[in-house]
Amino acid sequence: MAVTLSATLAANEDIERRRRAGERVLNLAFGEAGLPVHPALREQLAAASHRNGYGPVAGAAGLRGAAAGYWTRRGLITDPEQVVCGPGSKSLLYGLLLAIGGDVVLTMPSWVSYAAQADLVGSSPILLPPPPGEGGVPDPDLVAEAVRGARARGRTVRSVLVTLPDNPTGMLAPRRTISRLVEVARELDLYVISDEIYRDLLHDPGQEYTSPADLAPERTLITTGLSKSLALGGWRIGVARLPDGADDLRGRLLAVASEIWSAPAAPVQEAAVYAFTDPPELTERIARSGRLHGTVAHAVRDRFLAIGASVPAPQGGFYLYPDLGHLGLGGSAEITRLLLDTHGIGVLPGHAFGDDPAAARVRVAVSLLYGDTHEERMAALESSDPLRLPWIKASLDHLALGLAELSLTRPALVS
Amino acid sequence: MAVTLSATLAANEDIERRRRAGERVLNLAFGEAGLPVHPALREQLAAASHRNGYGPVAGAAGLRGAAAGYWTRRGLITDPEQVVCGPGSKSLLYGLLLAIGGDVVLTMPSWVSYAAQADLVGSSPILLPPPPGEGGVPDPDLVAEAVRGARARGRTVRSVLVTLPDNPTGMLAPRRTISRLVEVARELDLYVISDEIYRDLLHDPGQEYTSPADLAPERTLITTGLSKSLALGGWRIGVARLPDGADDLRGRLLAVASEIWSAPAAPVQEAAVYAFTDPPELTERIARSGRLHGTVAHAVRDRFLAIGASVPAPQGGFYLYPDLGHLGLGGSAEITRLLLDTHGIGVLPGHAFGDDPAAARVRVAVSLLYGDTHEERMAALESSDPLRLPWIKASLDHLALGLAELSLTRPALVS
Repeated sequence: MAVTLSATLAANEDIERRRRAGERVLNLAFGEAGLPVHPALREQLAAASHRNGYGPVAGAAGLRGAAAGYWTRRGLITDPEQVVCGPGSKSLLYGLLLAIGGDVVLTMPSWVSYAAQADLVGSSPILLPPPPGEGGVPDPDLVAEAVRGARARGRTVRSVLVTLPDNPTGMLAPRRTISRLVEVARELDLYVISDEIYRDLLHDPGQEYTSPADLAPERTLITTGLSKSLALGGWRIGVARLPDGADDLRGRLLAVASEIWSAPAAPVQEAAVYAFTDPPELTERIARSGRLHGTVAHAVRDRFLAIGASVPAPQGGFYLYPDLGHLGLGGSAEITRLLLDTHGIGVLPGHAFGDDPAAARVRVAVSLLYGDTHEERMAALESSDPLRLPWIKASLDHLALGLAELSLTRPALVS
Repeated sequence: MAVTLSATLAANEDIERRRRAGERVLNLAFGEAGLPVHPALREQLAAASHRNGYGPVAGAAGLRGAAAGYWTRRGLITDPEQVVCGPGSKSLLYGLLLAIGGDVVLTMPSWVSYAAQADLVGSSPILLPPPPGEGGVPDPDLVAEAVRGARARGRTVRSVLVTLPDNPTGMLAPRRTISRLVEVARELDLYVISDEIYRDLLHDPGQEYTSPADLAPERTLITTGLSKSLALGGWRIGVARLPDGADDLRGRLLAVASEIWSAPAAPVQEAAVYAFTDPPELTERIARSGRLHGTVAHAVRDRFLAIGASVPAPQGGFYLYPDLGHLGLGGSAEITRLLLDTHGIGVLPGHAFGDDPAAARVRVAVSLLYGDTHEERMAALESSDPLRLPWIKASLDHLALGLAELSLTRPALVS
């Protein structure tokens, strides 16, 4: 089993320790949304503070109903019986991997916790790259080949996990790839687990979005939550949508949930009921957040492009995945170390996401640049030109300077 | 892996469904504390509703400090570094079993989730009875013999799990048994996992209490939480105390936590900081709760004794473990079914706790008798004679009548 702290959380704790010790470090490592709780959600939580019963393992009926409405409004007609809640979509992903069993196909790179969770449940992850120029979904042709090969060697492969839009690359897989993937999944009888936690944070609200559940509802399991869109990471609330009639899988997931976490905190469930009804004030907050993430992500991307890095254009969420291989300074561990120790720029190495350690790719999260205080973050959210806010401008300048210095580093000096 | 919902939660959902359908059913199955949230905790939660960051996996520094103080005031000097928080002590128990690995020794009977969790992490539980007339701790001589035997057969046994005071029996293991158990644990190099979630609910506050950590701090892991003492089951907050210097085990537990649940909900952590400082208003609430649990538990015990059942006297928590074998009506499944279907009395069968299915022992939780509304529950808590409150009296009468009818059932009529 994995015996190290999640790479994301460990890097964040290290960076925050350095900041407390007075080091000037940009935290571009941690995938926290970096924005305040909307006051309406605070009110909902306070109003539900009398709720102390354990409640159903699948989540309160009201919450399952609200989540069903959330998906139905997005074109996926959903019955509340298809919904299972958990303390964060991370716990539901773990529960699904444990309930489904067998090996799982992941994208290379993909979020740090997928492979670690697979390891914890005793499953072997099969990492495959996306089609060229894409992210978040493994190349369907490679999936077909690898699953057949693994099965020929006696392995049981039961699922493929995708991220839409993606962490770490920020890219959104196009419909044609999803369509090919679900064909392969049908042919090989695989579940498609679709992590859609960044779905509501597309930078262009007019962007076409295809969930595998749109094309193969009978085998797609969606997870999402409020950690990213409404910045409620610390509240620990996620929901899963199972196929209609998947009673056996639902029973297994609830069995796992009932023995590990029971249910999300009851007052948080009540606040989530409100959030999943898409009330206008929250929809507007999410739209503003998406615009802010997009604006800052593109500005950060420009800083990397300026030193000649190759960086896929992000389409959703708050991540970038630059490749600094042209500098010849080593692989992702070396470049991450150099950025942090010499230039005060904290990022995550691509190898933590299952990428080739020899590649100099790093994951950059931009959402902790919005400010250190409630006031700064609100100003960033409300500004028509957040890049001109002094604290964001200072961070971007720190980044530009650090990258410029990095690009002048002579490879020979790096040991 | 286990593919059924936790027996406790499943029974509760079944009983609540029957009640909603208009059936008159006493819910004596579910281990929920049945009391309202103290207003001071509601205020703390509301005041912390702005907290939305993920925070450290081990729990916020303030919470670890408060929990360290909680144990230190109970005679176990504790450093905040020894504390790890989780969404309920259940999650921490799962994390510890996964982090420790190997097989685990349990008491027969013991809480339903221990064996189910062991099953989920791929460990084999070894169930052993307590010394005659006791509960919550397996007979140390039998532990020594069984662990040696299992090891001789090539098994790895790494821990023994105890419950103080116990669920399902309500008994508190005496110091002499704890003392013998830790000798065996030292001899065989076993961790002792001590589930002390009912510790603050002893019916006699003067009762001597010995934790294995008092005698063998170097190998004892304590779990507790606020679900029982402060009726915060639905808030999902637990804490574990590890031995000083157990860095490797702590690292493994945090690795598990970081990949499954991250941390308890941040606003709940803030409220828990307050609770773990033992403020007088909460200490008084817990003392009142303990008295109420004890009074009602003894009254319920009297109803079972009245029909000739044998029932160990409970010493803490809100459970009883009557043996109805003298009626000759079958094992625990049959007697549970008869009580529910014919007499409207919902209990849990002893076999769910790992007990011999042929024995007619059932677990009775009394805490859902205090009322169906906030007002009834507060009245029960504040009453100097809760047994005379009309709704509690009616439930006790329902129980007495049902048991009297049950005791007249002719064995031949049961198929």
